Formats: sequence, C-alpha cells, structure tokens
Amino acid sequence: MKAIQIVKPQSPPELREVDKPEPGPGQVLLEVTAAGACHSDDFVLNLPAEGFPYPLPMTLGHEGAGVVAAVGSGVTGLSEGTSVAVYGPWGCGTCHFCSRGLENYCSRAAELGIAPPGLGNPGAMAEYMLVDDPRHLVPLGDLDPVSAVPLTDAGLTPYHAIKPTLPKLVGGTTAVVIGVGGLGHVGIQLLRHLTPARIIALDVTDEKLDFARENGAHEVVRSDADAVTNVRKITGNEGATAVFDFVGLQPTLDAAMGMVGTMGDVVIVGIGDGVAAAKVGFFTQPFEVSVRAPYWGAREELIEVLDLARDGVLKVAVERFSLDDGLEAYRRLAANELRGRAVVVPE
Amino acid sequence: MKAIQIVKPQSPPELREVDKPEPGPGQVLLEVTAAGACHSDDFVLNLPAEGFPYPLPMTLGHEGAGVVAAVGSGVTGLSEGTSVAVYGPWGCGTCHFCSRGLENYCSRAAELGIAPPGLGNPGAMAEYMLVDDPRHLVPLGDLDPVSAVPLTDAGLTPYHAIKPTLPKLVGGTTAVVIGVGGLGHVGIQLLRHLTPARIIALDVTDEKLDFARENGAHEVVRSDADAVTNVRKITGNEGATAVFDFVGLQPTLDAAMGMVGTMGDVVIVGIGDGVAAAKVGFFTQPFEVSVRAPYWGAREELIEVLDLARDGVLKVAVERFSLDDGLEAYRRLAANELRGRAVVVPE
Amino acid sequence: MKAIQIVKPQSPPELREVDKPEPGPGQVLLEVTAAGACHSDDFVLNLPAEGFPYPLPMTLGHEGAGVVAAVGSGVTGLSEGTSVAVYGPWGCGTCHFCSRGLENYCSRAAELGIAPPGLGNPGAMAEYMLVDDPRHLVPLGDLDPVSAVPLTDAGLTPYHAIKPTLPKLVGGTTAVVIGVGGLGHVGIQLLRHLTPARIIALDVTDEKLDFARENGAHEVVRSDADAVTNVRKITGNEGATAVFDFVGLQPTLDAAMGMVGTMGDVVIVGIGDGVAAAKVGFFTQPFEVSVRAPYWGAREELIEVLDLARDGVLKVAVERFSLDDGLEAYRRLAANELRGRAVVVPE
Amino acid sequence: MKAIQIVKPQSPPELREVDKPEPGPGQVLLEVTAAGACHSDDFVLNLPAEGFPYPLPMTLGHEGAGVVAAVGSGVTGLSEGTSVAVYGPWGCGTCHFCSRGLENYCSRAAELGIAPPGLGNPGAMAEYMLVDDPRHLVPLGDLDPVSAVPLTDAGLTPYHAIKPTLPKLVGGTTAVVIGVGGLGHVGIQLLRHLTPARIIALDVTDEKLDFARENGAHEVVRSDADAVTNVRKITGNEGATAVFDFVGLQPTLDAAMGMVGTMGDVVIVGIGDGVAAAKVGFFTQPFEVSVRAPYWGAREELIEVLDLARDGVLKVAVERFSLDDGLEAYRRLAANELRGRAVVVPE
Repeated sequence: MKAIQIVKPQSPPELREVDKPEPGPGQVLLEVTAAGACHSDDFVLNLPAEGFPYPLPMTLGHEGAGVVAAVGSGVTGLSEGTSVAVYGPWGCGTCHFCSRGLENYCSRAAELGIAPPGLGNPGAMAEYMLVDDPRHLVPLGDLDPVSAVPLTDAGLTPYHAIKPTLPKLVGGTTAVVIGVGGLGHVGIQLLRHLTPARIIALDVTDEKLDFARENGAHEVVRSDADAVTNVRKITGNEGATAVFDFVGLQPTLDAAMGMVGTMGDVVIVGIGDGVAAAKVGFFTQPFEVSVRAPYWGAREELIEVLDLARDGVLKVAVERFSLDDGLEAYRRLAANELRGRAVVVPE
Repeated sequence: MKAIQIVKPQSPPELREVDKPEPGPGQVLLEVTAAGACHSDDFVLNLPAEGFPYPLPMTLGHEGAGVVAAVGSGVTGLSEGTSVAVYGPWGCGTCHFCSRGLENYCSRAAELGIAPPGLGNPGAMAEYMLVDDPRHLVPLGDLDPVSAVPLTDAGLTPYHAIKPTLPKLVGGTTAVVIGVGGLGHVGIQLLRHLTPARIIALDVTDEKLDFARENGAHEVVRSDADAVTNVRKITGNEGATAVFDFVGLQPTLDAAMGMVGTMGDVVIVGIGDGVAAAKVGFFTQPFEVSVRAPYWGAREELIEVLDLARDGVLKVAVERFSLDDGLEAYRRLAANELRGRAVVVPE
Repeated sequence: MKAIQIVKPQSPPELREVDKPEPGPGQVLLEVTAAGACHSDDFVLNLPAEGFPYPLPMTLGHEGAGVVAAVGSGVTGLSEGTSVAVYGPWGCGTCHFCSRGLENYCSRAAELGIAPPGLGNPGAMAEYMLVDDPRHLVPLGDLDPVSAVPLTDAGLTPYHAIKPTLPKLVGGTTAVVIGVGGLGHVGIQLLRHLTPARIIALDVTDEKLDFARENGAHEVVRSDADAVTNVRKITGNEGATAVFDFVGLQPTLDAAMGMVGTMGDVVIVGIGDGVAAAKVGFFTQPFEVSVRAPYWGAREELIEVLDLARDGVLKVAVERFSLDDGLEAYRRLAANELRGRAVVVPE
Repeated sequence: MKAIQIVKPQSPPELREVDKPEPGPGQVLLEVTAAGACHSDDFVLNLPAEGFPYPLPMTLGHEGAGVVAAVGSGVTGLSEGTSVAVYGPWGCGTCHFCSRGLENYCSRAAELGIAPPGLGNPGAMAEYMLVDDPRHLVPLGDLDPVSAVPLTDAGLTPYHAIKPTLPKLVGGTTAVVIGVGGLGHVGIQLLRHLTPARIIALDVTDEKLDFARENGAHEVVRSDADAVTNVRKITGNEGATAVFDFVGLQPTLDAAMGMVGTMGDVVIVGIGDGVAAAKVGFFTQPFEVSVRAPYWGAREELIEVLDLARDGVLKVAVERFSLDDGLEAYRRLAANELRGRAVVVPE
C-alpha cells in the first residue's frame, strides 16, 4: 500500500510503497478515509537527525479517520465497515490519568514505549492504519470523515484548552483569542457556542481578522504593540476574563498577561518557538490570574467535539488532497500557502 | 479448580469443581488471592427462578483480587505475578461514560451483554478468575489483598457517593451517616479524613453506635422516631449539609429528608427494600436540597481508594474464610452473623 | 403617592394613596421606573386571612427598578439619578449564605424579620420604594427598565436553576424545558445561549410550542400522556441530561423523572400546587439522577443576567401598564390573559 | 485613646494618644480585644516617603477583633457586647466580585477610595476601631479573640490559596509547602485536615522543619539546591500535585516549578522581594500546570476558617503583647525574633 513517510530528518516526506499491516490481538485495522496534516508534522520533519525521537522511516499522520477493515482476535462490539475517528494521544489505559480518559497525560507512556500514530507509530497518511485498541476509536456516524478528521487535533486541542475556563465565562465577561489559524478559528467557534462572553480576536493581517469575524468574533484587534491598550479600551479597566494564546511567542504571551484581568485565565496553546514563557509573580499581573499550557485532549472530549460537529456547531475549513498529492499538501503546509486544514484522502 | 457457585435460584450456593479458565486474546487470568462476599450476593441468591437475570451455574464474587497468572495474546505492560485488585463494574470502555472511567454507568453494557464478574460473568469465588481487559485491574503493590479486596466495592461505593459532595463539606458543616455497616463504617472514615465536617452517625444498636465512634463519628444518635429532632439539636436549625443513607428504607429516607438543610445533599446508597423513595417538591424540604442515588464507582476512584488504604486512611474490618469454608461465609452473611466483611481466601 | 396594595386577603388589590417614604440611614429611595407583576403575587392575594404571613396593607411588587431619588445617611458611592434594578431576595448580608451573595437562602432572615419588597416589605408597585441597602441594587446603565425589570425574578430564577447544571450540558446532550411561560421561555433562551445542548420544550398548546421555537427550542413535544415516550424517541435510550420543570405539578414531575437519563439533573422550578413531589429511590430512576428545587437566585447572578440582557442574549416578552391601570394588570394575570410579563410603569 | 501609628515613613511606629472615634450611620465601633501584627505592616513601614500610599499618621493593624461598643444609625441585628473578628479586605460590597464575597478583589475600591483598616484606614492597633459596615464582621462566639485574630489574615490567606486546589488533592497525591512561617504553618494544618495528600514541607532550618512536623507535615526537606531532587525522590517521577510557595523568592519559585507534576498547581502566596516570577511556557514545565498568585480571601472563607478553629482544626502560634508593649512587638517582628504571630491586646 502507499504511505507518506518521513525517511530522512530535515528532508521532505516521501510517498512510498509499504506492507499493508495485519491486526494483532486486540488491534483494529482501518482503511483510511481521511488524514489531516498538522503544523507539528512540519515541526517533526525539521528536527535534526541527531536525537531524532522516532524510528525511521515513519508514516506520518496523527489526525486519522477510517472504516473498520478488520479486527484482531479478542476485539468485540465493533463491526467491519464502521466509520470512525482515531483518538490520537494513546496512553497505557490504566494509570490514574488514563483511567479518566486523559491519555494525553499518560504517566507510563514513555516507560512502556507507547506513542501516538504519526508521532512514533505508523500514522494515518496511508491506505490503511493500525489502531492499538478499540477504545481509541470514536464512531463518526453520518459525519463526513474529511470534514471531521481535523477535529481529532485541531478541534480537540482548543476544546480541551477552553473547557476548564468555561465556568468563568459568564455574561459580561470577555474572552480573547490570539492567532486565528487552524486551531484559533475553532477556538472562536467554541467560545461563541459554549459561552455568552464577548470574543475579541487578535491577528496580524486583515484577512485573518476577517476570518475571525466569520467564525464568530465580536471584535477584532490587530496584534501589534498597541494590542494591550486596544483590548483594554474594549474591556475597560477590568481586562479579559480569559486569553487563549494560539501563537505562543514571547510578544503574544506578554500581550496576554497584559490584557487579562483579576482571576482571569491565560492559556498557552501555541508552541511558538518552544522557549517563550509567561511570567507569573505576586505583583506581575492582576491577582489570581491562572496560567497554564495544556496539550491535546481527553477521550471524552473527542466524543463531545464530534457531537458538536454533528450539531453544526463546529466547522473546520479544509483543503482536500489525494494520497498521491499528499507531498504537495506538506509542501504548501511548510510554505504557509494553505487556507484551512490540509486533509489527505486515499482513493 | 474449586468455585463457589449459584446453581439454583433461592438455594444456598455450592462448592463445585469447574474447569480452570484460559485467557483469550486481551484477557488476563488471575490466581485469586481474595474474594469478598457482599450483601448483594445474598440479594441475587434470593431472586426467583423466573426471570433470573444470569446464566446458571455462575461463580459468585464481584469483589476480587489476585496475582497475574497468565495473559492472553495482545496484553502488554502487565507482568505475571503482579498483585492486583479487580475493578468490577465492567463496561464497553468506549462510550461517553466509559471514556471518563465511569464504566459503572456504561450505556452499551446491556446491548453488548457485558456484565461484572460475579454478576453475570464468573466471579472471584474460585481458585482462578478471568478478567476481560487489563484496564479493569489496579496494582495493589504492598497492600494486603485480604484487607484490600473489600475496597473494590465496600470502599469504592461510599467513596463515589461522597466525592461529589466534598466541596460542600467545609468547616462548620455537618455530615450524617445512616447505617454503620459494611459500607457505612467506610463512609465515616472517608468523611473524617477528607473533610472537616462534624460527623453524626445513626444506627439502631449501642454496638453499632460504638463502632461508629471507633471509625471517627463525632456524635452518634439512635435511629428511631426522635432521630430528626435529635440531629437538629446538634445541627441547630440549619440542618445537615449532607446525609448519606446506607440503609435506604422508607423510615431512613424520611429521616434523611427531615434533617438535611438548605442546599444540602441527600445521597441514597443503601438498596433497602428496593422500592423506598425520597420525595422532593417545592415546599417539601429546604430549598435546593439535592437528592441522588449513585451506584458503585469509577475506575479512577478505585485507584484513589486504594491509595487511601495505602496511606492508612481506610481500614475495612474483615473476617477471613478459606474457599472450603466459603459456604459458611455465605450462611453467616445471610444470617447477619458477620462482624466485618467476609473475605474468602483460596489456599 | 399612589401604590397598589393588598388590603384584604382573597380580594383584588387596590390602588391607594400612601405616604411617600423617606430613606433612613443606609437606605436608598427609588423613584420607580418599572415593576413586574408575578404569579406569586396572585398566590399571595389568594392566601386565607387566617395565618396571612404579611402585615396589611402591603404594597405589592417584588420585581422593581427605579432611579435613585435620595440616599440615607451613610450611603456612599451611589449618585442620585442612577438607574438601577432591585435584587429582591433580601437577607441579613452577613450569614454564611449571604456572605456568598445567596441572600435568597439567608439563614437569619426569619429570625431578624427581614423580607423582600412586595413579600413582607412595601414593594415596587408605587411611585417610590425604599431599598434597605445599596448592595441590593444593580446598575442598569443603558438597559430599558421596562424590559429589564422582569429579569430580577423571571430571569434570575431560571438562571439560578440552570447554572449548576451547565457543566453537564456538553455537546451531544439534551435539555428539556417543561412549561413555556414567563420563566420557561427565559429558560429556553438561557439554555440556547449558554450550552450546545439540544433543547426540547414541552407544553400543552400549539401556541406555547410555537413560542418555544421562537425562543430557541430545537424540538417541541406536547405535554401529554405520551410525552415521555416522545422525548425518548428523540434522545434515544439515554434520556435527557437535564429536565427543568417550570410547572411543578405531579404529572410534569413524573414525566421529568421518566425522561431523565443516568447522572442527569431534574430541577423543579415551578411551584405547581405546592404539594407535588418527585420520588427518588435506588431503582426508581436511572442511576445518580439528581433532583433539586431551588428558589430565586444570588446577587452575582442578577448581575450576570443583566449583562446577558445587555448583550442581547435575553429578552423577556412584556406588556406595559400604567400605575393607574395596574389593577387591570393583576386582573389579567389572575385570568391568565397576559401574553408576556405585565410591567407597571408609573408616570 | 491609645493607638500605634505610622507617623513617618521608614521610621518605627509610635504609640500616640488619638481621639476615640464615633460610629457614623451604618458603622460599628469596636472595643478592640486583639490586633495581629503582620509582615506586611513591616513592608509598609519601610516604604519610601515619596509616593507613600496612605494618609499619615495612620493607625496600624489589619488583623482585628473586638466587642461591639456602639453601632451607628441604621445598623440592625448586631448587639452591643458581641465578640467579633474583622474581615479586613474591605470592598464596595456591590460589584461582581463583592457580590460573591470576594471583596479582596473589589473592582471599585481604588475608584471609591475604599481601603482596609490598617492599610489606608485606621486599623486595629488601638483601644477602639471603626468598622465601615456590619458585613465586615464575623461573630467569634466562644473563640478566644487573641488566638483567633491572626486567622483573619494568616488563616484566611492560606485557606483562600488552598481551597481551589482541594479537588486535585485526592488519595495518593502530594502537596508541598515552601516556607513554614506565620502563613505556611497554617497552610500545613489546613492541608492535613482538608485533604488526604502527603505533605512535604520545605524550609531552611532544622527548627522550622521540626515546626513543620509538629503542624502535620509527613515529610520535610531542606530548601536548598537539592530540594527539587529530594522532593522528586519522594514523589517519584510524577512530581507534586500542588506546591504552595509561602516565600515567593526566585529560588523558591524555580524550585516550585521544578517539583510540580502534570496538571499540578503552583500557588504563589509569599510576596518575596516583590519582583520574582515563575515562568510558564509550552515546554517549560509539565503539561497543564496552573500557576496563580492569589491575595487574602473571601468573606465566606473567613467564616469557614473561624469554624475550623472552633472545631480545633486550626491553631496559630501566638505571642501576646499589651498595647503599651506594641512597639516592642513591631521591633521583634522587624528583627525576625518572634516565634508565632504577635498579637497586641489592649487592657
């Protein structure tokens, strides 16, 4: 079968012929219906050869959907032909975090060598993929796999970032979204449908700010040196109750800390350059501001995100590529030429 | 191997020779180290033949502990010889409830024919038992299986009943425990260690009230017609912030509703006669009292309960029986002659 | 000044000339801009003379808004002419409930003889009204007092009823509203704007069901003997995650308990006949259903409700009457001839 | 009457004769029974003259207790002779924060010139003190004012810091307290009584570590360069679920961030040098660690803290001084010669 693989660090991925996998006991084989390409793929492709964290070659794709093609021995309650999405952050299933569905924070994954598809295990950018356990599948029902597949990361990650803050976002509060990209525009939709908060979106181009409005932002502000002042003009002295930074660079983090109000939340979702940090001290920001940097999401949350899509609440902008054109998808991802999420669809 | 089985409804269980099971793919075979006998076993033993809910003969025991004797194909991360407790309320592992570890409320169990060990599947009252999935095991480490095994139900059930109420039990509040039996005395221990609430225990004999004090009750009140008045003498007009009814008969439910205060919780844990009910109306009880009747508990909660035992917070009184003497354990259970939980230990 | 008063139990209210009050120390005098008439006024008007709970004559009106006309000595931070709404459930301000703003549950109100305006103290159905403490006022800003005044009860009560249930109402869940009257239609609006839940509304006439749809209900079901079956057709086996009963009669409570699902909430908001009750037992309803009957709401919640109105989220249908026509408002209220909330506006 | 006042910045306080105040409308006059001296008094005493934030001379003392000596007009429900503690973080009483009892975060205090006693208004270090509103008083009942008065800050502040973290501190978790001083030792007591967490205390001297054990710490670790390593030896790889830094200097904040685990909380309670800060980035600490710096506490929390003292859960070590010896109390506070909280008791 065909698969898009990383073969050599710091080189473009390659379309290669590999063996079709067989499901072992407890495993599920999916015929892939859709695979999403993500900025973190690009991040991995650019890692240096020395200390490269994954075995090579490795099939890409941590956002996956498919239909059940075969099940290994011991798998029950799952019919062939069922359309499913893959919950990507695989964990051990038994530790305290996994027992609550927070497999993204599995405390034994490193020790046991467990890794997500496309980030250590063969991913979804192929005609078929193996899933290690039926609990990592969520039935799609009538949902279109192509539209739904980005929700497994670009939907789940902002949902998990926003959910703990929901109780604070009552009437009269303000939520700020910094960065209206693949995750940020979903964040705006979620805030709009799950809270009555006034939503202010920040980005650097008119196009992105228009995109923010289309997705539900009440106000837009250019992300520049005056952003804090301009947001405070809208919120008044009280500042924002929540700021979600989908960029994560030092200037956006500083802005986030400057516009949040007493008891507000600052949530760092974007990786940025990987070293930027917000500073929290006794007199550094308003009292009892909480700052956190979450990662991906929980199993129950993926179920809820797909239910939101089913109810028409969530819609991710998508560009569709065949598997043969998948390398082009990655090229355009790297070149920042995509409008919406690139989804690869094997034929 | 030997197993204690229900063979015929409304008859005593029998000690029988049955085949030692083999673990299929994804399954785990335990050599049983301890099995707890529970009042609900007695309830099942007394069900009429017509409409009897389980296949017969059926090995009893929904509280189980063992050491891993063998694992089926596809099971990883679990070594033979590991000492474990069994999480009993098995579910599908994938529905919205199961994804959060609330397999006790699995929405697909009935449809898929999934049932707990000892309550549909062969249970722990045998030399060996099969567990359907490694996620239903919690490592015991150094915990003594005989002391720990009752925690899988008699510990987990009160913990799950109490946990949602913890935020209400701040300084200056009162929690009432009605019924100081196998679950109730654990409830008192939990309330004492997890909250600063004043604990009032109700039961019908001096012996039980002494037992309540030994387990941490600050005050004891005889459970009779004056109980509401006597509890209100202690709480003042405000009433109790929480009442946990481990009995569940009409008089105890009525008393619970009579002693709870505004915004308090009434939690029905005991099955009682199976038909008693609390009444909730606009003027029937203080405003915003919440009444609920939970069942068993979540996977993460069993981990937490065993951690509490490890830290010396929880101790269940136990009487030990060999497998050969197991029928005597059930006889004394039925006759209400046990002091503490009956635990059967195969030799 | 003119005031609408109860003079004699079980008789229509009267429009009378009374003394204009003077604000004592710590008090605030409002020139009334709007006063809402509520079904509970009618309930009070029909109470028997024997044991009548309030001093007579008593000015009606527990939903009030006004502009600050004068402040008593010691009142600071409040300018004359400020437009405000009155938080009605006055409490002592210092007990544990009041310290959290839950003055609706003040534990000392009875002892200290504290009562809401219109329910023990002179109410808002007059040209002027006294408010005992500035903390019982919320600034209206640009909000129209006539549209906003019903929110002090008909908005605050459903908001307080719904708020604790919000975390359960995630994507894929269902919320049922029984009774699409003065409070119920606000409940639908709140659920629609604060949650992604599918909303099913029940009532007995086509007109009411149409009104439910206009307010945001996704589905409507006639409230009859088949209601439980028909709701279950929509929710599937799982039932509703929340049922808000704005009627509170025995048939609606029974229906609520019949359509709620595991871990769901049943919230009794309507007084009904004052004696109906839901039954909660171990096997009576799905596991861990919570049933509660709250009353009115908290101070912070009124602020939040008015902020929701300011953002266009909440709109109460209103019929406007002059003070001279106020008796007609009460007649039509009693005759159930109103469409929307009756608001009396002194000229 | 006598009062201890700041007269000149950066000079020792003085014992002076001042007029006994009279309660205006809505105010309460207390005959002081106890006043606590706090490190933040020392901080204020050392502020430079330029930009000194308070009017001078100013009577010190933001921890106060007294008996009601007289009430102003309009004050009801409060009898002369009642023993009370003063809730110090006065706010407007009406904004969104104050409506929930969070007057410590009042959004209008600055604008309206509202300030706590001893921090802008005349404080408790005198024979009498004025309280602006009865809602700022909590009845002490039988509690000894001398033992109880430090709870208004040294009890309330750690309680408010710890309370939001309680749901995370289940069985099997670890809580770290850095700094076993006036607030830290109360923090240890609270954690011990309100959670089943293993408590690790850090400080720099054997005496402080012994004091930590006396107050309930399970483990103690010297606060030095190896502290993170030594704490991780106890917690294993998973790290601590919560770290409360009662010091707030850069080395303690860095240590806190180094020992916290996934989804853990870091709470900055100590002011330190006023400029230290914790850094929160995507890869900087374990995922979803939350960092916050709260200030003082809520009205309901002071009620709860005093209830905990009443139940014997909280005990603050106290050294007692007469008002005439109060200057010596401040000298020893500045010289760090106190063992326990200095409490001044007028005779």
